[in-house]
Amino acid sequence: MTYSLLPHHDGSSLYVSTQCPALGETVTLRLRVPNSYPRLRSVIVRSNPDHEPHWDTAQAIGSAAGWEWWEAEITVANPRHGYRWMLVHDAAESGEKLPVKWVNQAGLHTGEVLDAADFSLVTQAAAPPWLTESVMYQIFPDRFAKSASSSSRTVPDWAQPAQWEDAVDPVMPARVRQFYGGDLDGITARLEHLQSLGVGIIYLTPFFPAASNHRYDAASFTTVDPHLGGEAALIRLISAAHERGMRVIGDLTVNHSGDGHEWFQRAAQDPAAPERSFYYFSGQCAEADYESWLGTPSLPKFNWDSRGLREAFIEGPNSVVAMWLRPPFNLDGWRIDVANMTGRLREVDLNKEVRTIMRSTMEHVKPDSVLLAESTNDATSDLTGDAWHGAMTYPSFTRPLWRWLSSPQHRPYRLAQDEEETVPWFFGQPAGGIPTGTAQEFADAVDRFNAPIPWRVRLGNMHALDTHDTARFAQNAAPGTVPVAVALQMTLPGLPTLFAGDEFGLLGADGELSRTPLPWNRLEEPEVRQRVQLYRGLITLRQQHRVLQHGGMRWLHADEHSVAFLRESREESLLVFASAPTAAGDHSVVLTEGLPETDCAAPLWGTAALLTTSQGVQLRAHGPACGIWRLPGVTVPAQ
Amino acid sequence: MTYSLLPHHDGSSLYVSTQCPALGETVTLRLRVPNSYPRLRSVIVRSNPDHEPHWDTAQAIGSAAGWEWWEAEITVANPRHGYRWMLVHDAAESGEKLPVKWVNQAGLHTGEVLDAADFSLVTQAAAPPWLTESVMYQIFPDRFAKSASSSSRTVPDWAQPAQWEDAVDPVMPARVRQFYGGDLDGITARLEHLQSLGVGIIYLTPFFPAASNHRYDAASFTTVDPHLGGEAALIRLISAAHERGMRVIGDLTVNHSGDGHEWFQRAAQDPAAPERSFYYFSGQCAEADYESWLGTPSLPKFNWDSRGLREAFIEGPNSVVAMWLRPPFNLDGWRIDVANMTGRLREVDLNKEVRTIMRSTMEHVKPDSVLLAESTNDATSDLTGDAWHGAMTYPSFTRPLWRWLSSPQHRPYRLAQDEEETVPWFFGQPAGGIPTGTAQEFADAVDRFNAPIPWRVRLGNMHALDTHDTARFAQNAAPGTVPVAVALQMTLPGLPTLFAGDEFGLLGADGELSRTPLPWNRLEEPEVRQRVQLYRGLITLRQQHRVLQHGGMRWLHADEHSVAFLRESREESLLVFASAPTAAGDHSVVLTEGLPETDCAAPLWGTAALLTTSQGVQLRAHGPACGIWRLPGVTVPAQ
Repeated sequence: MTYSLLPHHDGSSLYVSTQCPALGETVTLRLRVPNSYPRLRSVIVRSNPDHEPHWDTAQAIGSAAGWEWWEAEITVANPRHGYRWMLVHDAAESGEKLPVKWVNQAGLHTGEVLDAADFSLVTQAAAPPWLTESVMYQIFPDRFAKSASSSSRTVPDWAQPAQWEDAVDPVMPARVRQFYGGDLDGITARLEHLQSLGVGIIYLTPFFPAASNHRYDAASFTTVDPHLGGEAALIRLISAAHERGMRVIGDLTVNHSGDGHEWFQRAAQDPAAPERSFYYFSGQCAEADYESWLGTPSLPKFNWDSRGLREAFIEGPNSVVAMWLRPPFNLDGWRIDVANMTGRLREVDLNKEVRTIMRSTMEHVKPDSVLLAESTNDATSDLTGDAWHGAMTYPSFTRPLWRWLSSPQHRPYRLAQDEEETVPWFFGQPAGGIPTGTAQEFADAVDRFNAPIPWRVRLGNMHALDTHDTARFAQNAAPGTVPVAVALQMTLPGLPTLFAGDEFGLLGADGELSRTPLPWNRLEEPEVRQRVQLYRGLITLRQQHRVLQHGGMRWLHADEHSVAFLRESREESLLVFASAPTAAGDHSVVLTEGLPETDCAAPLWGTAALLTTSQGVQLRAHGPACGIWRLPGVTVPAQ
Repeated sequence: MTYSLLPHHDGSSLYVSTQCPALGETVTLRLRVPNSYPRLRSVIVRSNPDHEPHWDTAQAIGSAAGWEWWEAEITVANPRHGYRWMLVHDAAESGEKLPVKWVNQAGLHTGEVLDAADFSLVTQAAAPPWLTESVMYQIFPDRFAKSASSSSRTVPDWAQPAQWEDAVDPVMPARVRQFYGGDLDGITARLEHLQSLGVGIIYLTPFFPAASNHRYDAASFTTVDPHLGGEAALIRLISAAHERGMRVIGDLTVNHSGDGHEWFQRAAQDPAAPERSFYYFSGQCAEADYESWLGTPSLPKFNWDSRGLREAFIEGPNSVVAMWLRPPFNLDGWRIDVANMTGRLREVDLNKEVRTIMRSTMEHVKPDSVLLAESTNDATSDLTGDAWHGAMTYPSFTRPLWRWLSSPQHRPYRLAQDEEETVPWFFGQPAGGIPTGTAQEFADAVDRFNAPIPWRVRLGNMHALDTHDTARFAQNAAPGTVPVAVALQMTLPGLPTLFAGDEFGLLGADGELSRTPLPWNRLEEPEVRQRVQLYRGLITLRQQHRVLQHGGMRWLHADEHSVAFLRESREESLLVFASAPTAAGDHSVVLTEGLPETDCAAPLWGTAALLTTSQGVQLRAHGPACGIWRLPGVTVPAQ
């Protein structure tokens, strides 16, 4: 469908005077209404202070470029202040009926709407601007690069040493023991590669000592695994990254530790140990059962009711959370593993306490740091803006993109010598394959999973095609669709995130097989150069156009095979058209309304064409393709 | 539209083995899939224990009456255990595509869905069955009936005495001072009227001493207003009601007290008084400012951080909440005033604590009691099943019903001698009238506002056409639509609630003007007799058909002017058709699928006709009308 030209508001600065108001502050809100829309008798903002409706009347402030603008002032009453627009149509135009419409983050509605999809203002400190303005690059240290000193180190006793060129073995126990020996100095040596891609944030999966190659089973949270080079190597890496203007964030598991962690060891051996309260032991004897992550005994679950745990781990300047942000390490933030389950067990739910304490600690020791949550399914109930700046979450971008752009041709893959997996991996969902979806369903999912969260949190949600926990997108992508996916990743509101190796065009059939050591020796191969160039070009585009980092967003069109949308600011508008028809040939779309003047549309990227016809603006692409054009910015009438 | 015949599940006992499982208990869930639906490869229940997906595979247990049934067992992991159904279509039927659908409380979906509309099981104690099995009747004591002893009492010093036949004066200060002298013994004397209507629960607005006719500004929570007859009269009323098998619930304001309350008096006069902590005073001097309900100084807001307040008011067997449930009073529960704002102020939100403490107290002193929340807008975020058994809430039934059935002819009404209100009252929404809506929009709103709440809480939500805070529905109802509205009130899942006087056909243009003293002398007038008979008939129907109290619910049809749905159990199904065309004449609907055998459809109520035609079942009504038919129950195959 082509989206009708409708009243529009989003959380961007075109419409909202501040991204981080104080409690009690007055905020100016604007709504734009197309001239083609029925005449309005009044426009009113409905807030809900302390859960009781409150109404503020908007004033028409003028028209510009086909839109009438309305403006209202509201006073922020709660840390998360929800609001929506009530549009009272002029009854004279419809006889004696009185049409009333509502605009919330899910769009325009005829009936009354739930509070859940209200727009919202948030009073807690916002993420630092560098989060929104960067592209992130995820590194799994064992598989990224080896420094010269790596080979001289002993291999941990649990490990099965592998050569860099060896295939990844996805079968237990090799799955967690196969050890390639990538290290932090290896990363430092490759910073030029990252910088040339345009990466702004390096996200390292855990660097703590552990008994696995993934290191999510930390044996300590206060040291760097010596097999990665120890603390000194981390300091070298972060310092070198900072010198290049890049940030580095770490990965912290606050849901559980490894059973080798000193806290757990003491707790398990001595029921009287203070650390006993850090975990959920069911009895008073040393052999007692304890809670663990999904029943995995090597990953004992933390009990966040424990004061001692809070003090040691997340609260105050001497906590684990704080120490790595301070000198000499100067880490720039954390991605929190299994954030969705943290503090939650049966009747207990301390999640909000844990995340807000963590963030408060970070605010004190390094306000300019970021906090991201792993919450791979519906994360909206936790993404209220109170702590998480964004999330590694899949339903709002990654999964619907896979559903649209994956090939229906399933390629079996080998799990072990005598075991073949005949259906593609799909995020642990037992559907027996990748559920089919359309471009329209992709757009709907983007809307559905972003409607319940504050705009500024949306900008911090990771737009990843894949991660260290998933198959590679390219593994299942329909032919030619990778550039379409990367273009959407870079242009939709969110935090574009590469998993190291995406730029090499790596494949990988599941979350283990995608942890391939990076084939640095292939960097000059034409296919790899082309893929690197794809990323470099689109990341550069995002860096050059602030509207892609902070601008508002409006859908123009979605059908089975394509989507079109605008990113908008006062300075400029970018039009994005992404098309991936299943049949060979051209796919074209005609937009009859909603676009700024396109006479001066400047093509910025991609092979799709924009043609001004008598019917409207035609967007046309051959096969899977994209187009990005620059258009004039939005004129807001001065009041 | 006629709803397609689709896979169905709801929280009723057709589909769920228990309404109140324990944590860790295994619950059996069933899904029914019409034979006309595409072949399914698998049906899987997706739970979300501790916010991490978990999958349980369902088994096909057999077919009956055109439906295939699937059954799964799940283990309840959290106090509110959300779940939904994943339907994996047989890919062979659609080439190489893999269609996956989801069923949640909002219906059937192609894309992935939010957790918010999951079905849910709740482990906290459920409401006593008598809540769901009753019809409630709301009484505003000053206006219901006077006993003989009323006239011998002195009138409070703040009051403006009124004669029973005087018109209600909606202008301040008469608005709150006009005093008709209705009392509790007056109610006791009229219990026969209520019993003959079929009322099961009497809900009294506050009976505490106060300085207003509405008594929401309590001067005490431990005595009954002597002007109502004092404690002895309350004991007489409750005891007499219990003898007739009726229950009585009270109305408690836990958001604020009156400024005449002894707690507030002590707090205001002495900054060192223990009661000082019960409120929000901003300074340490006696003249200090304090927080109050919407800035009304006579209604100082409670600070629920106060231990002392909790102990005195809501916690333990000696608290206010408990004392009225115990002998000699034996009250059967509470409706909590302004529940939505309770415990909420700026950055503070103690609402969940307050409601769960209250409910816990009630569980201890009288488990067989009910707790309802006033939450007149979107109440879904509070209706999680943890405390409130239901709510006085308007967007899930009352407001969309008004929008559909109100006349577009607006009648001005007099507020005062020289002041006329030219637009009808609509729940404080400043739209300047009653927003127009259709029957389809009514059905959509019922779905939208019920999707986020547990089924058993839905059954406790008040289905009121009006209350003491609203205009009367009849005031604005399009001609002939009252029976349609009452039939929907009694047949949709929820707690049917009359505001005293509805059965007299009283009018009232706003929440003040609707507080008319009941005209008992008109009981024998033909119009009143007809209206009483309408209620009596439909309440009797609801009492005789348990399926209307506990049964499942499935929409069959909705269009601009009518809705049709089924209430279903193993014992029987009731088909309800409600039609209110705006033009004169007949409105008819043809249902081609989804109905049990209608050969033996037995008409139970209403003037609409059911005809079996070659196209399907035709439902036809002349003007605004309803029909209710009894059909065979649902056959569940034995596994």
